[in-house]
Amino acid sequence: MAINTSIILRIEMDHASSTFGEFVTIINRAGGDVVAVDVISPGKEKTVRDVTVNVSDSSYPRVLEAVERYPGIRLINVSDRTFLVHLGGKISIAAKMPIKNRDDLSRVYTPGVARVCQAIVENPAKAFSLTIKRNTVAVVSDGSAVLGLGNIGATAAIPVMEGKAMLFKQLADVDAFPLCLDTQDTEELIRAVKQLAPVFGGINLEDISAPRCFEIERRLSEELDIPVFHDDQHGTAVVVLAGLLNALKVVGKRIEEVKVVVNGIGSAGFACCKMLLAAGVQRLVAVDREGPLRPYTAYGNPAWQWLAKQPQLCSEEGELLDAMRAADVFIGVSRAGVLTVEHLKQMAADPIVFAMANPEPEIDPELAAPHVRVLATGRSDYPNQINNVLCFPGIFRGALDCRATCINDDMKLAAAMAIASVVTANERNEQYIIPSLFNENVALKVRDAVIEAAIRSSVARRIPPEFRVESQSLA
Amino acid sequence: MAINTSIILRIEMDHASSTFGEFVTIINRAGGDVVAVDVISPGKEKTVRDVTVNVSDSSYPRVLEAVERYPGIRLINVSDRTFLVHLGGKISIAAKMPIKNRDDLSRVYTPGVARVCQAIVENPAKAFSLTIKRNTVAVVSDGSAVLGLGNIGATAAIPVMEGKAMLFKQLADVDAFPLCLDTQDTEELIRAVKQLAPVFGGINLEDISAPRCFEIERRLSEELDIPVFHDDQHGTAVVVLAGLLNALKVVGKRIEEVKVVVNGIGSAGFACCKMLLAAGVQRLVAVDREGPLRPYTAYGNPAWQWLAKQPQLCSEEGELLDAMRAADVFIGVSRAGVLTVEHLKQMAADPIVFAMANPEPEIDPELAAPHVRVLATGRSDYPNQINNVLCFPGIFRGALDCRATCINDDMKLAAAMAIASVVTANERNEQYIIPSLFNENVALKVRDAVIEAAIRSSVARRIPPEFRVESQSLA
Repeated sequence: MAINTSIILRIEMDHASSTFGEFVTIINRAGGDVVAVDVISPGKEKTVRDVTVNVSDSSYPRVLEAVERYPGIRLINVSDRTFLVHLGGKISIAAKMPIKNRDDLSRVYTPGVARVCQAIVENPAKAFSLTIKRNTVAVVSDGSAVLGLGNIGATAAIPVMEGKAMLFKQLADVDAFPLCLDTQDTEELIRAVKQLAPVFGGINLEDISAPRCFEIERRLSEELDIPVFHDDQHGTAVVVLAGLLNALKVVGKRIEEVKVVVNGIGSAGFACCKMLLAAGVQRLVAVDREGPLRPYTAYGNPAWQWLAKQPQLCSEEGELLDAMRAADVFIGVSRAGVLTVEHLKQMAADPIVFAMANPEPEIDPELAAPHVRVLATGRSDYPNQINNVLCFPGIFRGALDCRATCINDDMKLAAAMAIASVVTANERNEQYIIPSLFNENVALKVRDAVIEAAIRSSVARRIPPEFRVESQSLA
Repeated sequence: MAINTSIILRIEMDHASSTFGEFVTIINRAGGDVVAVDVISPGKEKTVRDVTVNVSDSSYPRVLEAVERYPGIRLINVSDRTFLVHLGGKISIAAKMPIKNRDDLSRVYTPGVARVCQAIVENPAKAFSLTIKRNTVAVVSDGSAVLGLGNIGATAAIPVMEGKAMLFKQLADVDAFPLCLDTQDTEELIRAVKQLAPVFGGINLEDISAPRCFEIERRLSEELDIPVFHDDQHGTAVVVLAGLLNALKVVGKRIEEVKVVVNGIGSAGFACCKMLLAAGVQRLVAVDREGPLRPYTAYGNPAWQWLAKQPQLCSEEGELLDAMRAADVFIGVSRAGVLTVEHLKQMAADPIVFAMANPEPEIDPELAAPHVRVLATGRSDYPNQINNVLCFPGIFRGALDCRATCINDDMKLAAAMAIASVVTANERNEQYIIPSLFNENVALKVRDAVIEAAIRSSVARRIPPEFRVESQSLA
């Protein structure tokens, strides 16, 4: 039995009609393995126990069914490890030093802190050195487009934002705090983020529905002097480009030559299109539910409208199947089932397919494999997982370290190239175009590339020591 | 020499006109002690060094003056320990567990986290168990009334709020996050706090100017289902009452009998008045710049208006000097110099004086001492320091642990009595009416008392195990 999780059953056992020995037996028969028992409240007639049971994916439901059918047992609650790691939340606040005595207190709090406040009054830029602003990012969501769950609202989105904060910390030592805002009005959201910005060195927007996310990000970027980055858009686009750069090397094609079809022009799809154009793609087909976008056509959706004006947008008629003809690259950020083998057969030689719909790709990878040269998905159980985790920690680490005022296209392109570069020429092949999420080099390489690009494009307010030439210094 | 701080001088030394040996000598002569030297950038003609020097309060300015006068030295920067402890901020975010592998990742983040989100969608109250909400408080300020500095704005207020977060963590293991909001419009502030509330189990308002703070707190308390507590008001009032309860025991008077003068009816003064009335004071004189408030008079300020309607408000004519006649207790939250020995001589026998103006008390404690029985101030260099730090950690710890919907008068009274009770009858005397800030029993005693009061007044949504009677449980 492949054990892959443990669950905790809280049961109330009626002594008159059941024994614990029988209970263990029925769990074993259902494929579970009792590994621990804790008595929660003993009693003469009834006892409440927490029973820890190892189960596999397949035995999990059988164990629950067996327990529920067993007379004399009332199943009060089931906790599995996923729920257990969430108890009480996944992050905490830590003081950087203890306050051991009155001297310490008078330095970190009143009266000493007043001099530090006064220094920031005199020069507000000092907030970057004298407060947490230097290393702190807000992970902001309104819960309007959370994972595959849709519009679940602010409170239910908190666990995702906490998880993101953990990754920020572990992968790039960025202090990220989750802020789930209880409004889905575009103007109110913009106002709230502007108002809470002082303590933060950057804003990571997350799981905000399209097309509102475009306006929200654009306005905040214009109106704040710290980086604002909608990860669902740009994180995805950066990692897609990183994978594509390596995939193109594997098949021996140049980015300027290939025909690329992007399917699903929501927030991520639009950002992928922009990133691909910035990286040099000359022939792009952008497909949504109603077929390929038409050049120089008026659209109500501002993202579509922008794309329609780009000279690299190819004129295609018909539907996705037609658009796939002679395509070198397919980028799917749409939904399961939109792609068939028939579609793949339309493609040029050595097809590259990124099927990233969640949780099920646009086409079953097993079905697609014989018909494509390079296949990538959003999933961890196939090679070439395209995952934002490769991008956001390093890109914010870089932006914070050089006090960038924004994260511009140059910085995103640099991040994509840095991620791609972690896979060396020797390692690179059809099954390995993108580094692992747990590769510790990624965030550091991205950070360095992003700082260089920020300095080059004049959006850095500080040049970190290792990037200084002679006596140059901005801070 | 009483060394009490170390400073770091960054100097540029011109080798042609100075030597480091001479430099050390002039520092010694000025009363400083060079303890470390770090070369930052060596050079043929000029060298930049960081020189760590131990100084006392009196030698600090003399050392700086000597360095500035010394030829061949350019003083680039002076950092003292207060600034040094602020570098990079005073708090950080910590992940509660490492993400060691893909299994971990799939539990704390996608795809596993989706089930946790779904559980909160089905029952929003589960946010209290499955997210950081259970233990997390926002420390919110608009920077409009920071310490004695006044309206310094959001960014410059950050160091104070970070210090508060450190104290929350150290004294009560509460995770507090500083949010300095870039608006001073009352309605916008209310809206912003409501919008960012989902991730928090409580809101600590801080350093918001009167009378705006009254409306902001009232509205937020009404419109949010988590506790909202303006610490400058209620923290002060709770600790004042705690000290007063013990002071009255020292002089042998009952709270129902005494005449109390409160001077300075801003946010803290108003909260003190309310707290004193709730605790049983029958004769209260509230004095502001224009003299004693008059009963049943119409005032534009809503706090004054409320007080004027209370039957316990005494009718007094004249000014503060008149109001002091036969007063048993003086509570000053006003400004230095308003109190003279003449005022104290008006008071009844065994006068109790709380002179809490910051940073200088209403009267010099040395001057006052011969004329009062019990003297308390806001300062740490005299006995009986009245400091909010005794209240806010424990009161929020209690409110969070029982998931209180608010912090009501019963809970504040209970907190005051708990703080007072830490000083035992044997210990209690004129010089010791309030426990030390570093007394570890305070937060725990306050927490327990607050939980009991919350349960009794039916604002607790959860009864912690140790407070449960038989099978009672709310969560």
